[in-house]
Amino acid sequence: MSNSIGKLFKLTTFGESHGAAIGGVIDGCPAGITLDFKAIQNELDRRKPGQSAIVTQRKEPDTVEFLSGIFDGQTTGTSIGFIIKNTNQKSQDYSDIKNTFRPSHADYTYTKKYGLRDFRGGGRSSARETANWIVAGAIAKQILKDIKINAFTNSVGAIALDKSYQELDLSQTESNAVRCPDTETATKMIDHIKAIKKQGDTIGGTITCVAKNVPLGFGEPIFDKLHARLGQAMLTINAVKGFEYGSGFEGTKLKGSEHNDAFNVDGSTKTNLSGGIQGGISNGMDVYFNVAFKPVATLLQKYDTIDADGNAVNVQGKGRHDPCVVPRAVPIVEALTAMVLMDFYLLDNSSKI
Amino acid sequence: MSNSIGKLFKLTTFGESHGAAIGGVIDGCPAGITLDFKAIQNELDRRKPGQSAIVTQRKEPDTVEFLSGIFDGQTTGTSIGFIIKNTNQKSQDYSDIKNTFRPSHADYTYTKKYGLRDFRGGGRSSARETANWIVAGAIAKQILKDIKINAFTNSVGAIALDKSYQELDLSQTESNAVRCPDTETATKMIDHIKAIKKQGDTIGGTITCVAKNVPLGFGEPIFDKLHARLGQAMLTINAVKGFEYGSGFEGTKLKGSEHNDAFNVDGSTKTNLSGGIQGGISNGMDVYFNVAFKPVATLLQKYDTIDADGNAVNVQGKGRHDPCVVPRAVPIVEALTAMVLMDFYLLDNSSKI
Amino acid sequence: MSNSIGKLFKLTTFGESHGAAIGGVIDGCPAGITLDFKAIQNELDRRKPGQSAIVTQRKEPDTVEFLSGIFDGQTTGTSIGFIIKNTNQKSQDYSDIKNTFRPSHADYTYTKKYGLRDFRGGGRSSARETANWIVAGAIAKQILKDIKINAFTNSVGAIALDKSYQELDLSQTESNAVRCPDTETATKMIDHIKAIKKQGDTIGGTITCVAKNVPLGFGEPIFDKLHARLGQAMLTINAVKGFEYGSGFEGTKLKGSEHNDAFNVDGSTKTNLSGGIQGGISNGMDVYFNVAFKPVATLLQKYDTIDADGNAVNVQGKGRHDPCVVPRAVPIVEALTAMVLMDFYLLDNSSKI
Amino acid sequence: MSNSIGKLFKLTTFGESHGAAIGGVIDGCPAGITLDFKAIQNELDRRKPGQSAIVTQRKEPDTVEFLSGIFDGQTTGTSIGFIIKNTNQKSQDYSDIKNTFRPSHADYTYTKKYGLRDFRGGGRSSARETANWIVAGAIAKQILKDIKINAFTNSVGAIALDKSYQELDLSQTESNAVRCPDTETATKMIDHIKAIKKQGDTIGGTITCVAKNVPLGFGEPIFDKLHARLGQAMLTINAVKGFEYGSGFEGTKLKGSEHNDAFNVDGSTKTNLSGGIQGGISNGMDVYFNVAFKPVATLLQKYDTIDADGNAVNVQGKGRHDPCVVPRAVPIVEALTAMVLMDFYLLDNSSKI
Repeated sequence: MSNSIGKLFKLTTFGESHGAAIGGVIDGCPAGITLDFKAIQNELDRRKPGQSAIVTQRKEPDTVEFLSGIFDGQTTGTSIGFIIKNTNQKSQDYSDIKNTFRPSHADYTYTKKYGLRDFRGGGRSSARETANWIVAGAIAKQILKDIKINAFTNSVGAIALDKSYQELDLSQTESNAVRCPDTETATKMIDHIKAIKKQGDTIGGTITCVAKNVPLGFGEPIFDKLHARLGQAMLTINAVKGFEYGSGFEGTKLKGSEHNDAFNVDGSTKTNLSGGIQGGISNGMDVYFNVAFKPVATLLQKYDTIDADGNAVNVQGKGRHDPCVVPRAVPIVEALTAMVLMDFYLLDNSSKI
Repeated sequence: MSNSIGKLFKLTTFGESHGAAIGGVIDGCPAGITLDFKAIQNELDRRKPGQSAIVTQRKEPDTVEFLSGIFDGQTTGTSIGFIIKNTNQKSQDYSDIKNTFRPSHADYTYTKKYGLRDFRGGGRSSARETANWIVAGAIAKQILKDIKINAFTNSVGAIALDKSYQELDLSQTESNAVRCPDTETATKMIDHIKAIKKQGDTIGGTITCVAKNVPLGFGEPIFDKLHARLGQAMLTINAVKGFEYGSGFEGTKLKGSEHNDAFNVDGSTKTNLSGGIQGGISNGMDVYFNVAFKPVATLLQKYDTIDADGNAVNVQGKGRHDPCVVPRAVPIVEALTAMVLMDFYLLDNSSKI
Repeated sequence: MSNSIGKLFKLTTFGESHGAAIGGVIDGCPAGITLDFKAIQNELDRRKPGQSAIVTQRKEPDTVEFLSGIFDGQTTGTSIGFIIKNTNQKSQDYSDIKNTFRPSHADYTYTKKYGLRDFRGGGRSSARETANWIVAGAIAKQILKDIKINAFTNSVGAIALDKSYQELDLSQTESNAVRCPDTETATKMIDHIKAIKKQGDTIGGTITCVAKNVPLGFGEPIFDKLHARLGQAMLTINAVKGFEYGSGFEGTKLKGSEHNDAFNVDGSTKTNLSGGIQGGISNGMDVYFNVAFKPVATLLQKYDTIDADGNAVNVQGKGRHDPCVVPRAVPIVEALTAMVLMDFYLLDNSSKI
Repeated sequence: MSNSIGKLFKLTTFGESHGAAIGGVIDGCPAGITLDFKAIQNELDRRKPGQSAIVTQRKEPDTVEFLSGIFDGQTTGTSIGFIIKNTNQKSQDYSDIKNTFRPSHADYTYTKKYGLRDFRGGGRSSARETANWIVAGAIAKQILKDIKINAFTNSVGAIALDKSYQELDLSQTESNAVRCPDTETATKMIDHIKAIKKQGDTIGGTITCVAKNVPLGFGEPIFDKLHARLGQAMLTINAVKGFEYGSGFEGTKLKGSEHNDAFNVDGSTKTNLSGGIQGGISNGMDVYFNVAFKPVATLLQKYDTIDADGNAVNVQGKGRHDPCVVPRAVPIVEALTAMVLMDFYLLDNSSKI
């Protein structure tokens, strides 16, 4: 198991969905930062279950308790320990999956790799873990204050925004349950998720994230290129299947003369197909990227699978699950982006002579 | 700078395209492995410049010299130091770019981040670095012998394979210069690259990689999920803009009931949209993924840019560059895949009680 | 701040002496270990304050609560989060040191490095942190079961054992409050500590630690030699000033012909001045070493110092402190030794082909 | 194997004593440093064999060749690769030890751990490796220029300096072959080593190292305390058996009231039994410590041992070895000290907001 992310701003986490608590340790947070605890809780609330009709109806307050590293409201430079208690576990919901494996779920691989698994909820593989990331990301956001990180839902199933992020009013992202800044598209997405939910089915989607005011110099080639670390972070989110930045997969169809971003005399560029990164180092332009989420594996339908003894069985899916993870994943994408940028902020600082 | 990749099978590299040599140190290679040096050189030859009409015409033998860690043909468990001498540098080719920045190239960000740069070739940002990866990857391949890793060119510009990897004969990949296992498509790709080259332009493309016989259990959640580490590795390759595994971006459009891979009673799955990975851990099925490469930034045309003093200038691109990096990147993708799998091989071994 | 120790068996900790709780995350504990929770609590009890007349009279139960990574009494291979609540803080005792710096204490350097400090108790620099290590060490001990680790008090001030560890009955270590396995010497040590305590003063001492049945092969040269990692671990314990293994400082006076350990035909050695380690790798003989502890800095006397404004002041030391840390440090030395050996156990396993 | 040291200023090394070359990669050296190559070579010359009558008579120039990371005499911020060719190997000298194990030498443990060993010289366990450290340390010294690091021979066998470092003129260290700044003591030490050498025997000793002008704030508790990292570094040097800083083992005999360093009003201290470190963080006073070296294991006498088949044999030691490693270890101690301090320089910088 590898439960740490980051080099200088490092988060180490623990916790199963149905244990006493989840939590983590933030190591490397600079001293003397006056924290805005409401802003941290607000980010947790963006992720928490039960916030709207299109997400899981599980109710958990997701209240973070800080145990160390903060004195009189200020960070002390020592490690910040925190826990988030699990208050709404209904372990009985999982008795049916105790001995069966959900298709396309971590149930099977955890059981085979470790020889046993905590079958209540997803155990350690549950997306509940991402609440820990929100805490660390929310602190990072406060330190990086001039860097503005905005993620939003770009597509749900086949319903996709047909505008670039520059054409959107990102301040509208939080105005609807699906977190799509275009109201018309948002309505279609919400309706689609509701229809899918009625079927006991699930649907995938994509998130776009934009980080503005990233200073030139973030990223440490060869192996810690900014986009490589962002990609690794995004690919750790449950259900993520792909990552692309700047022109991404579409850009592969272009010629160099079409794709290159011409310079302005101040070093900025006229276009930004590069996604704000050259040679793995931020160039001062907007950093932006897309993240692909598969449909959630846990269905509330009947499905065929196998049990621990290798028998074919037919199971009725139960529990309270998201029909689409994308809306709740928006703050998670932002949190991980903040953590990665924070790490490079510290790394870049370190070698200043 | 961060010049190491891997945790237990770790490669640390150095070298600029126009210095005396590039090279690296492999730390963590198990002892007692009898190395096939011809196979290592063969992998280097697959990557080397000048191998066909559609790649850079620079001629370099790329001969690796091992300096340590091997005794009587066997690995000793100590660190393996190696160098690859640079023999065909033509630094004068770069005098024109000494004071100007190529658009969409690392020239600008390196200069601004570090305060200076080795302007000969790409310096440290040159893809010549990838020869180091080939060496480590070739050794990893020999240790992982039952795991078969095959990458191939999936698209060049808009010309794409219309078959899945299962429908292709991957043994044909090396039969043509573009490394596409379908002869008809390969011919179109080659013709397209030749036409692009004539224009002094460049073109992007994608590579698919398949790893067969990966044992169940590779991958260390939460933060070292197998696909997250593969993604990070791929995103370190020069010109890469995106990574997706299994169903990838297309999979986001599906419903869970369409996307889930139903189990056979032996634990294998009837479909494999998961790309051989569940919850970040290999499940015993084929691991496969796509990598997106942008068109090379360096053009052999006239282009507008700025110089170090911030003046707008018009420059005639010179030198010997690839019109499309994809064919030479195929062995690079394989090498990094081998290194990542090797690392998980050792990590997975470590906790066996 | 650096709050993690270990590479594959890694402990990350947090907590100030007067916060809500201290705690940590153990990453890398193998799955399927049935834990003996009583044995863990027993180790904590050996370290806890208030256990005898010669240690601090602070009363804290030091009860560990595991929050994750354990299911039905077994480790699951996921990270083990735990907390130990702080129940007996008397912050008012520290109001006198809020604005002054104790000589030879971390007060001053923490304040200057971080710009502020949690002045209650030692804050993060408090030896309360070592309770976290006990938890991780106790788990490691259970996994390493055949390896027997025994530490004991070797000297208090000038009162020292005059026998080698082979001449002692180490099962007697816990039979007295000072944890010296020789009853006669123990009595002298206890009397000495009592006399020192009466003066409001403190005294130093040394601990010897012996690990039996360490398999040949633990230690990863060049930079993770077994003794180097043991040394680093011991030097992290509060008040430690020195580390030596095998013949140590005394061995520097010998000639090679006197110092070399002659082999028996089975590869064991007739003597063991090497301390069970050759070239940084355990050789199958007993591993043993000494650790030097300075006298505690916090006195219960009047002393001269300076305040935060740089004024000379005279202060009356208060609070409940150990007159000699050595007796309570014995289980701490064992815990860290177990953690280091556990790490090498996993590292050594990893490269087995 | 673990062949890297440092976190932000990281050296990764390779090389056997009788391979083509040894070398390393320095990762994290800041950009824009104009290097003094003569000073680097000068440090190598202080370590090289054959420099005086009391060290091994092997003649090797130990010339470093830099392969990358330096352009026009300046560091570029990219990794610095270097090699030192092995020019004076006499492998035939080792034919006698091919099948036998030298007592108290790494021969045995390497063979048993890795299943084979490069028996020429010490292979990877040879102190030749330390030449790599000299290179990295010499570069660190140049960057840390105000910090003055001086090591010297404190004792050879039972012949020890009876003065503290403050009473010595450290500029005299290089004035004699044994590197003891007191001429009278130096003469005794040299005579003693010559007598020992005549016997084909070896002798141990100790080195003291002093670092002046270390800024307050170096050291990252809990687990990267400055003295813990110095200790680990020193304990990686071949033949080292112990480390103590400040008052060290002697300090354990004192009372707190005797041991505490009283403050001056400017925060400096009247005494410095602390060795310049409080709570693991430098306090602005001199950092000083002692390192214990055992007598070299390789004797030029007849000795009893066993062979690879477990037979008792009697062997005549041959080859060119140091009768006492201490004089040549003085620059090694300095180099590692510089590397550790350089690492903390960068770490401390990193979290400056």
